[in-house]
Amino acid sequence: SGLVLVKNPHLDLMEEDVLYHLDLGTKTHNLPAMFGDIKFVCVGGSPNRMRAFARFMQRELGLAGDGEDVADICAGSDRYAMYRAGPVLSISHGMGIPSISIMLHELIKLLHHAKCRDVTIIRIGTSGGLGIEAGSVVITDTAVDSSFQPRFEQVVLDDVVVRSTELDKGLAEELLACSRDIPDFPTLIGHTMCTYDFYEGQGRLDGALCSFSSEKKLEYLRRAYDAGVRNIEMESTAFAALCGLCGLKGESCRFHLL
Amino acid sequence: SGLVLVKNPHLDLMEEDVLYHLDLGTKTHNLPAMFGDIKFVCVGGSPNRMRAFARFMQRELGLAGDGEDVADICAGSDRYAMYRAGPVLSISHGMGIPSISIMLHELIKLLHHAKCRDVTIIRIGTSGGLGIEAGSVVITDTAVDSSFQPRFEQVVLDDVVVRSTELDKGLAEELLACSRDIPDFPTLIGHTMCTYDFYEGQGRLDGALCSFSSEKKLEYLRRAYDAGVRNIEMESTAFAALCGLCGLKGESCRFHLL
Repeated sequence: SGLVLVKNPHLDLMEEDVLYHLDLGTKTHNLPAMFGDIKFVCVGGSPNRMRAFARFMQRELGLAGDGEDVADICAGSDRYAMYRAGPVLSISHGMGIPSISIMLHELIKLLHHAKCRDVTIIRIGTSGGLGIEAGSVVITDTAVDSSFQPRFEQVVLDDVVVRSTELDKGLAEELLACSRDIPDFPTLIGHTMCTYDFYEGQGRLDGALCSFSSEKKLEYLRRAYDAGVRNIEMESTAFAALCGLCGLKGESCRFHLL
Repeated sequence: SGLVLVKNPHLDLMEEDVLYHLDLGTKTHNLPAMFGDIKFVCVGGSPNRMRAFARFMQRELGLAGDGEDVADICAGSDRYAMYRAGPVLSISHGMGIPSISIMLHELIKLLHHAKCRDVTIIRIGTSGGLGIEAGSVVITDTAVDSSFQPRFEQVVLDDVVVRSTELDKGLAEELLACSRDIPDFPTLIGHTMCTYDFYEGQGRLDGALCSFSSEKKLEYLRRAYDAGVRNIEMESTAFAALCGLCGLKGESCRFHLL
């Protein structure tokens, strides 16, 4: 049917669904009227970048004059920022798996309540590249954990549930084809490694704590490269798992800074 | 010596230390002049609340007129917000362990570079209470994970390192004593459970995914209560572990929202 799947038998029994961190709700907002025509959702860590992206989309789509008038739909909350440009929603998710997970739970319920169909979700942003040219964009085929495994371990109460982290391969190929239309835009498809920590988890030598040598770091990153990892960030496994379970066609494209 | 401990042999070899997510650095800023007299750091999830807290501290300390002029020291970055009121620094950390960890690594290096001494760090904010009166404040004695164990499992490269999550018991007692001076301010000391997920991890029935029954949720929360847990949030184990390792006297006080 193309509808977003919510897998929670309790939701139908609730009189009201409050999307706390988005400052939206089923009783306070007409979600089908506000969001029913959304076809694309782009998410990224930084609120400023997601506002800039919404303005860019407005200009690209020929909407609303100079593109300076995007308003934060979640202005009543400072947890996330949300903007729209025609059928495109642009939302920030902060840094790390717990932060993106809260946003995705509420976004998926929003799309469900709004009866959206055939929604594509794309995660955009920056990441650390591994053995690739600076300025490259990595389109993720599979998100992997710090042991290079294609899995997301979700703690549900005190049980550990293992979820798949494959992303939409057709969408990855479509995005790669788009990149070929732009000159000097190095783009590749590869695995993306997702860590819980920016400093110790990614082998950085500049954290407040660092218990490993630069040799150990290089040996680890070499193993990651050999396992197919081309970039490192902090949200992709949870993104892939949640989108996959809820029937959202999802992809992650990260720009390799430096 | 009361100095903040940085446990990273690589840092001394670096010509410049850039605190990326705070938009500060050792070459671009005079950190001892800016921060050398800081004695207290208060951290919380929401940037708006941390600005409000800084204004409140300005008024309480009799500083700077009407308290309306606090400026965001990290204005060049939208990852975190930082304000100061006299010897008190007020910083937001976003939601979840990965987000607070990035901020704490950079904050600890900031305090180290600034040669701060005898710094006390207090985490403030909201949490879900467990079997306690709505509006209560829980002062954490020990942060525990979703299995009620006093530990923080940090992935360093692909090794798992287990760290202690005890907080400063003397500081907890001091804060409890302060609360007794305020009428109708229910305050208690207890364990705080830290989860990686707000919906499935905390037994909430209103996420996009929910695979457990309300009976299973209640049984889990009852076991948590019996283990001494009095509130649930998403940052305390990482906060306790990092502060403990770096010699910061730390405490977590959370207000139990209904």
